[in-house]
Amino acid sequence: MPVITSSRVLDLRFPTSATMDGSDAMNPDGDYSTAYVILETDTPGLCGYGLTFTIGRGNDVCVLIAERFAAKLVGRDVAGLANGGMARFYRELVNDSQWRWLGPEKGAVQLSIAAVLNAIWDLMARHAGMPVWELLSTMPPQALVDACDFRYLGDAITPDEAVAMLKALAPTRADRIAELRRTGYPAYTTSPGWLGYPDQKMRRLVREAVAGGFRAVKLKVGARLEDDIRRLGIAREELGPDRGLMIDCNQVWEVDQAISWVRELAQFRPRWIEEPTSPDDIAGHRKVRDGLAGTGVGIATGEHVQNRIMFKQLLQGGAIDYCQIDSCRVASINEIVPILLMAAKFGVPVCPHAGGVGLCEYVQHLSIFDYVCVSASLENRMIEYVDHLHEHFLAPVVISGGAYQVPTQPGYSIEIFPATMSQYRYPDGESWAESKPTPASSAIFAR
Amino acid sequence: MPVITSSRVLDLRFPTSATMDGSDAMNPDGDYSTAYVILETDTPGLCGYGLTFTIGRGNDVCVLIAERFAAKLVGRDVAGLANGGMARFYRELVNDSQWRWLGPEKGAVQLSIAAVLNAIWDLMARHAGMPVWELLSTMPPQALVDACDFRYLGDAITPDEAVAMLKALAPTRADRIAELRRTGYPAYTTSPGWLGYPDQKMRRLVREAVAGGFRAVKLKVGARLEDDIRRLGIAREELGPDRGLMIDCNQVWEVDQAISWVRELAQFRPRWIEEPTSPDDIAGHRKVRDGLAGTGVGIATGEHVQNRIMFKQLLQGGAIDYCQIDSCRVASINEIVPILLMAAKFGVPVCPHAGGVGLCEYVQHLSIFDYVCVSASLENRMIEYVDHLHEHFLAPVVISGGAYQVPTQPGYSIEIFPATMSQYRYPDGESWAESKPTPASSAIFAR
Repeated sequence: MPVITSSRVLDLRFPTSATMDGSDAMNPDGDYSTAYVILETDTPGLCGYGLTFTIGRGNDVCVLIAERFAAKLVGRDVAGLANGGMARFYRELVNDSQWRWLGPEKGAVQLSIAAVLNAIWDLMARHAGMPVWELLSTMPPQALVDACDFRYLGDAITPDEAVAMLKALAPTRADRIAELRRTGYPAYTTSPGWLGYPDQKMRRLVREAVAGGFRAVKLKVGARLEDDIRRLGIAREELGPDRGLMIDCNQVWEVDQAISWVRELAQFRPRWIEEPTSPDDIAGHRKVRDGLAGTGVGIATGEHVQNRIMFKQLLQGGAIDYCQIDSCRVASINEIVPILLMAAKFGVPVCPHAGGVGLCEYVQHLSIFDYVCVSASLENRMIEYVDHLHEHFLAPVVISGGAYQVPTQPGYSIEIFPATMSQYRYPDGESWAESKPTPASSAIFAR
Repeated sequence: MPVITSSRVLDLRFPTSATMDGSDAMNPDGDYSTAYVILETDTPGLCGYGLTFTIGRGNDVCVLIAERFAAKLVGRDVAGLANGGMARFYRELVNDSQWRWLGPEKGAVQLSIAAVLNAIWDLMARHAGMPVWELLSTMPPQALVDACDFRYLGDAITPDEAVAMLKALAPTRADRIAELRRTGYPAYTTSPGWLGYPDQKMRRLVREAVAGGFRAVKLKVGARLEDDIRRLGIAREELGPDRGLMIDCNQVWEVDQAISWVRELAQFRPRWIEEPTSPDDIAGHRKVRDGLAGTGVGIATGEHVQNRIMFKQLLQGGAIDYCQIDSCRVASINEIVPILLMAAKFGVPVCPHAGGVGLCEYVQHLSIFDYVCVSASLENRMIEYVDHLHEHFLAPVVISGGAYQVPTQPGYSIEIFPATMSQYRYPDGESWAESKPTPASSAIFAR
């Protein structure tokens, strides 16, 4: 019976702002970062790893919160977590009334809870000797639903309904697993489209994406309309008429502005506009969707949607055409599974947000589970792919022919190399220590 | 020209859980706490004080974030802040793209921004020799609007519209100020109604509230229906038929449950049900409102509404009858003024959330400004009042005849006595240090 003996949380930051990787209209200079949780057990070789993703300043806040929560795991036994204890621990964190005041269920606290819960799912999957997608796909429907949070969802979906949905697809799971093992899960790439890239670099990268078998590409837009028109023209030229093109303005527009701006870009036939305005503006997304009716451009959002209650309203309100879950924004699988079930019930395809650091590694498990157990469809579904920072993971994603290959190693694919930890640890890792003095009161603004 | 020379942020916590003060169906044992900001200047006697409110664990997270932001103020001159610099600093904080990832504009970061901005408003008002309500009421409408955040509100209200609204009421401001100086601003009290109080204590406190001139009282509900029925019966008996009775379940219900539960309580004629379900569920509030149509019970929410974008939708969607702004949940006056303006435009009265520690001191300024400059109405408007922890403030609220008396001292009424700081500083103040060993990894769970 392995028992958790220690918890540690590291502040790792990658200086991505130096190359404009990740640049968009809202986030010109992110340093991709992570609060990285390590749970050790008394069983040699058995650890759990989990992370949450941020883009630099504030990462230490997530580290602080995650440390508090992870420390509560010390002394718990792993089999007990798998056997109902995970659900109880989830409620202990999310419903702690004092912490809840800082949310509830949103922002820094929710991001930090995700890091800790992600580590528990990794640990349970390693203990079971399975990748996380397989652990989820073999859990009895009632046990999985019991681990999930359906609070405040009662007017959209009930736990009993969820169990029935999962049971209905159980008999055919093996067929879909076999299919994905042959074909992989379709991907699109955002790697060519960062706003800070010059046209020539963007053209070359789109061409490479096409050559690599990707059937769709996403471009950042929203800074200057004439730039967007020129850049989308180049991308469409390279993609040809049939491959998919998506656009993403990262929340920079007002509601009415989103409609008029995207109408100017509709000539390039984007499949969706992502984050057209504030992620909190459910009614605004619905207005944008209505305003773009007839253009063929769908509405996508989710990477900043704070919890299942907001997703419920986006789905109930007919505000989105694509649901973009994030593996760290909401409270891990315990909150993501209800979102996948609601999306399936409302007929909205899930295309997860990825990129950052480790997000591709995570969301592949979620989309595979979605196909195998929840939606049973690949129609209009793709996982985002970005080609940076994978070299830091022991078992990174494998992309082939524009598709994610099914992970085979036990766990949630997120273990980071020790060399990465020593180099990118903030502020004392080799990549940070030399150039950056860090006075106590303003360390985080040092860059 | 005074210049800010230092910033400090203190973690102050009051052990309110010991007496069940503040207990409700969601928050059974809060320890009222504050991240308390002190800005010192090079002018003797001129400082700025600001706080954000939490209920215990996690308060140190707000301290950490507020320290980072407050440190950026050192070296800035106070007159420059008053003269457009405040608006620039607001945008610098709220739009910092790396920090924004932890929100955007919500949760722990937004609470912490409020503490720092509240301190700046206090400092500017002290420098001007006025209470904050008066500073706001004498700022030229354009200057006030320029300091405010109208981003993402364009489909509900524009800055030009806001200026026109403020200008229209400017000629009659003096009349309303004179009126409030005579009558005070109406208050209701929540002091009798905490869920942990026995019936006899509650009855006595309601009776005392009536004797003290309060025209309305609020009770916590939502744990057990039969308890609610009994307690509301007692309260209505003491209040008589004409005084107001409000109820608050602090988010514990599902949407459908809220409707059926409140229908059982409608016999006691509550004026509103507060926080009937998740504060994120805009559509849910609208459903509850529709479900209670004809009962006479209105819908109130706001103390956990994370930002102006959510308030916009609550107002646009006809989801609330009472708008309960909070002085620390959103980004201070810069975000609150647009909410007041939207509420006035949509015809919804503002009844601020107060209690906690310092919230009464803050919101009196906001409601006075609302009456003088924005709504010009007292109809269906009251400020919440709770009678604890005021003794820690140098210039606490003055309640007389069930009404808040207009503050006369310069600033935002939030300066705390030095003796309070040494006694309640966490974890080393006298109220905490003796009984609580605080090992590094779990200090915050020590209680």
